Amino acid sequence: MKKLLYLLFFICGTAFAQIDRVEPPFWWSDMHNPELQIIFYGKDIARYTPTVSDNIIINNVVKTENPNYVFVTIDTKNIPASDFVFTFRNKNKVAFTHKYSLKQRREDSALRAGFDSSDLIYLIMPDRFANGNPDNDNVKGMEDKANRNEPFGRHGGDIQGVIDNLDYIEQLGATALWSTPLCEDNHSRGSYHGYAQTDVYKIDPRYGTNEDYVRLSQELKKRDMKLILDYVTNHWGSEHWMYKDLPSYDWVHQFPGYAQSNYRMTTQFDPNASKIDTKYCMDGWFVSEMPDLNQSNPLVLKYITQNAIWWIEYADLGGFRVDTYSYNDKVGIAKWTKAIMDEYPHFNIVGEVWMHDQAQMAYWQKDSKIAAIQSYNSYLPSVMDFTLHDAIGNVFNEDKSSWDSGMQKVYDNFTNDFLYPDINNILVFAENHDTARFNEIYKNDFNKYKMAMTLIATVRGIPQIYYGTEIGMAGDKAKGGDGDIRRDFPGGWKGDTNNAFTTSGRTNQQKEWFDFSAKLFNWRKGKEVIHMGETTHYLPQNNVYVYFRHNDNESVMVLLNNSNEVQTVSTARFAENLKKYKKGKDVLGGKAIDIANDITMQPKSVLILELQ
Amino acid sequence: MKKLLYLLFFICGTAFAQIDRVEPPFWWSDMHNPELQIIFYGKDIARYTPTVSDNIIINNVVKTENPNYVFVTIDTKNIPASDFVFTFRNKNKVAFTHKYSLKQRREDSALRAGFDSSDLIYLIMPDRFANGNPDNDNVKGMEDKANRNEPFGRHGGDIQGVIDNLDYIEQLGATALWSTPLCEDNHSRGSYHGYAQTDVYKIDPRYGTNEDYVRLSQELKKRDMKLILDYVTNHWGSEHWMYKDLPSYDWVHQFPGYAQSNYRMTTQFDPNASKIDTKYCMDGWFVSEMPDLNQSNPLVLKYITQNAIWWIEYADLGGFRVDTYSYNDKVGIAKWTKAIMDEYPHFNIVGEVWMHDQAQMAYWQKDSKIAAIQSYNSYLPSVMDFTLHDAIGNVFNEDKSSWDSGMQKVYDNFTNDFLYPDINNILVFAENHDTARFNEIYKNDFNKYKMAMTLIATVRGIPQIYYGTEIGMAGDKAKGGDGDIRRDFPGGWKGDTNNAFTTSGRTNQQKEWFDFSAKLFNWRKGKEVIHMGETTHYLPQNNVYVYFRHNDNESVMVLLNNSNEVQTVSTARFAENLKKYKKGKDVLGGKAIDIANDITMQPKSVLILELQ
Repeated sequence: MKKLLYLLFFICGTAFAQIDRVEPPFWWSDMHNPELQIIFYGKDIARYTPTVSDNIIINNVVKTENPNYVFVTIDTKNIPASDFVFTFRNKNKVAFTHKYSLKQRREDSALRAGFDSSDLIYLIMPDRFANGNPDNDNVKGMEDKANRNEPFGRHGGDIQGVIDNLDYIEQLGATALWSTPLCEDNHSRGSYHGYAQTDVYKIDPRYGTNEDYVRLSQELKKRDMKLILDYVTNHWGSEHWMYKDLPSYDWVHQFPGYAQSNYRMTTQFDPNASKIDTKYCMDGWFVSEMPDLNQSNPLVLKYITQNAIWWIEYADLGGFRVDTYSYNDKVGIAKWTKAIMDEYPHFNIVGEVWMHDQAQMAYWQKDSKIAAIQSYNSYLPSVMDFTLHDAIGNVFNEDKSSWDSGMQKVYDNFTNDFLYPDINNILVFAENHDTARFNEIYKNDFNKYKMAMTLIATVRGIPQIYYGTEIGMAGDKAKGGDGDIRRDFPGGWKGDTNNAFTTSGRTNQQKEWFDFSAKLFNWRKGKEVIHMGETTHYLPQNNVYVYFRHNDNESVMVLLNNSNEVQTVSTARFAENLKKYKKGKDVLGGKAIDIANDITMQPKSVLILELQ
Repeated sequence: MKKLLYLLFFICGTAFAQIDRVEPPFWWSDMHNPELQIIFYGKDIARYTPTVSDNIIINNVVKTENPNYVFVTIDTKNIPASDFVFTFRNKNKVAFTHKYSLKQRREDSALRAGFDSSDLIYLIMPDRFANGNPDNDNVKGMEDKANRNEPFGRHGGDIQGVIDNLDYIEQLGATALWSTPLCEDNHSRGSYHGYAQTDVYKIDPRYGTNEDYVRLSQELKKRDMKLILDYVTNHWGSEHWMYKDLPSYDWVHQFPGYAQSNYRMTTQFDPNASKIDTKYCMDGWFVSEMPDLNQSNPLVLKYITQNAIWWIEYADLGGFRVDTYSYNDKVGIAKWTKAIMDEYPHFNIVGEVWMHDQAQMAYWQKDSKIAAIQSYNSYLPSVMDFTLHDAIGNVFNEDKSSWDSGMQKVYDNFTNDFLYPDINNILVFAENHDTARFNEIYKNDFNKYKMAMTLIATVRGIPQIYYGTEIGMAGDKAKGGDGDIRRDFPGGWKGDTNNAFTTSGRTNQQKEWFDFSAKLFNWRKGKEVIHMGETTHYLPQNNVYVYFRHNDNESVMVLLNNSNEVQTVSTARFAENLKKYKKGKDVLGGKAIDIANDITMQPKSVLILELQ
């Protein structure tokens, strides 16, 4: 009888569905940090008292000013992978229950390797890459409908489209894929970019399912490639379910409500900055549709930390790119980063620190001596070489070198390498989804493309390229806005007359560009001397920049003639690097070149020589 | 009889004058470093064996490949101020002798205070300031003759001219005088700048005598002003007596002989720099007339160290400015600097580190955390704020502020202040003798002048102004070269129709400029809150830059409207600095201003408010 009553009650409890959401939806046993904060969300749920199966310890239960939330923190230490039940009681009567799972981790999950300088990262915007499943272009309940004629609209690209074209990405020589965010972004306009997320535990159905995302990761892994998730710690979208029913007033930064960031990231370390300016930088919203998360609230910090770890574990990730890293609460984001790196010591995270001063960028890399001046450590393993990006954006139009122009500008970028605590863990790139398209700036000048790609493929750091550049895609940010630098990849949509994904589908120009790129990047794949070697560079002369990458076993000489004239490079100057070597095998051309004598360089040309 | 013979010998020894030079010519007892290296120079002097009076210990005697030099190092510890005799013997026979003096130091000489942020430094080129003694315009044996029509020629200015016009400098509010080098520069052309010295123990006779220089120092001291000597460690002139009879081949950097520096100071720390580029930066000559001293030769290092200390002690100096500091051998110059600072712990030395990157400049300041990355410490107390100088050189023509122009550029300069280990010990300046003249750039726009001077008078650091700017002097470096930015000060020469040194002699424009400057700088003199206070600055809005200097007792608010329009500044934003204050006394205008409400700023105007 008792049993029957209990069952009845249980059924009723479930039937009245007091729990609308549980996050994380499940977790894993045997994590480095055994503490797990579970959010139970449901109408007036805070009126109930949660308990859990006997073998689990509840560390604490936190209720906020919003009765629809309960934060239950449990200790998973020594709890094997298993299911257990949370029971919510009202005055000792069981009101409803929830079954929760701790899953088994993948073997060696904790020791997973993140992307590193042996990788080439290929950056895509999934909405614009390939439409593998036209059936999910429009999904009921998702407001922003597909419209390829709208530069800021959704075009239908999806995870299946990426999976379908992994051969292409692999052939190019890429070994890691960074996709801009794929989680749900259910705004009525501009949702294609995905940076205003509305559910961070769920892939946007217009891209596919969570399972599709895992499948993408698995397909990449088969090819020995890594998947990099674009994580957004700083903000959510204003349509995020939790923003619409805030757990607490201070869950996001309130002025009250929206105030725009001043975007002055220098306030993060400027000893002279006013408090008010600092507050507006860190706490101001990136745009009005992006409520700014308050990482100084421990509940928030824990939420985004666990969410990030959840994706690593769930989708078997090989890295994060973190959006607007230096806009976050400085202390909070360091805790977030450290928590993830503590969990996965060999993982990698690259932060978007978009500044134009190397000391300021180096400030944000883990163990920075510059940040240590202020007793700060971000724990962020990798930052982006934005000053190199700045130089690449105009240097190839500077036919003559002066005190600070032409290749001297590129040389100068590397003189401050000692400011970075880990110079090999820095992203080098000519462009990304937020910047001017390289091929637009240089009007598809193939020689300039070759110089830029040679540079990012052979200098220290982790090269990153932006989808389509390798086949000459352009687009004008100044005129066409972001939409124009995020055009659809040709061949990604049924009916595309030009299919650049296949050799036969490429135009002659696309073929030329792709073949050069694939040759360069596939060569780089196996070159440890490029991945981890020392650099020695020489002051440019006549706008010719020469540098060597070398280790105990190998030496590669790179020459870039950025002048508009034939240049004769006398090699005597490089004696300290040429040593015993007599010849250089031209990686791109194939033939061996005598390096004992002068080397003749055609105008706007490159040479990569493996010394022999 | 014995005595007579001895006397005869002594006279003969002296008569044959084997010693042409002894350097330092004398020294002092009771120095921190008791070791003294004395150079004896004379034809074949190395054939003789030196000894010294019984109470002195000779630590070592060094002879080089040139027999005309002997380097004798003695220990002066516990030796009171006294004379003693060096005896040179040939096969035990006394050949000749030399009487040497250890003098008594001034009381508290070791504890002398160098210039600091309470000072205003006035920079002059003595040849172009005032001709106090026309009799020394041309001196027998000095090749370069006076010719005021020649921009690169000597114009006759001298030490007496400076002494004659100290009232003027004092009235302006300056408390320290930096003169470009005054030691002998006996070259046939361009000797007026004094950076190619030919005798570093002797004031150039066209400027006066060593005694005149001491008199200048004494006259300054009477006015509580400091004398700063412009020291050149990196090079001498090619007519230097010692270069013409080198003690050793490696006394200067040889390629052999001259090779030009590549001027790429980044090679000093660039981990990627080639050895050959680094060598050409440090060891290459600044120009062909300036042999590059080899500070890695201990004899050279000791020579220039002692010479520097000699001038401090001899002329009772209040500081050094060191020319081309970052072109020196990096290790050598740090030893030089440390030796001087060990001798005078409260002295000050500002190095010319002319770079355009704050991390790179901060590298050179004592105890730099950036230099510590490479285990380097220059021990240099002060560097120059060249990036602020760069900004001042164009910002006042930027009527509108953008992301990185207008007053934002000035604000940005201070965001990296934390990179400098000692931000108050940094020179702030609008120009110097090597740069474009401020008044030329801005076409003598008085409002822009007021903004620039207000800035350097009220931001952190030690302000430095360049002679003549305060009366509107201009000069075009681009067209007229260095000569044109080093024009004669009006009133410094007999027959000058315009005498800006006196109130009555000034034109109306000169009067207006001088009066503003004197008011500003004399106000600054007593303001500890400006000298040592904290800074809080606010992001410029509408090209209006507002900052506060504050300490526990005082607060000064500075407003610079760099726009071409009247601006209404709402003060609510500054609450964290305005605190209890209700009014601000307008330092330049005199009246009190209500700061509880909006402040109206005229176009291109400044306000300095002492908060009350």
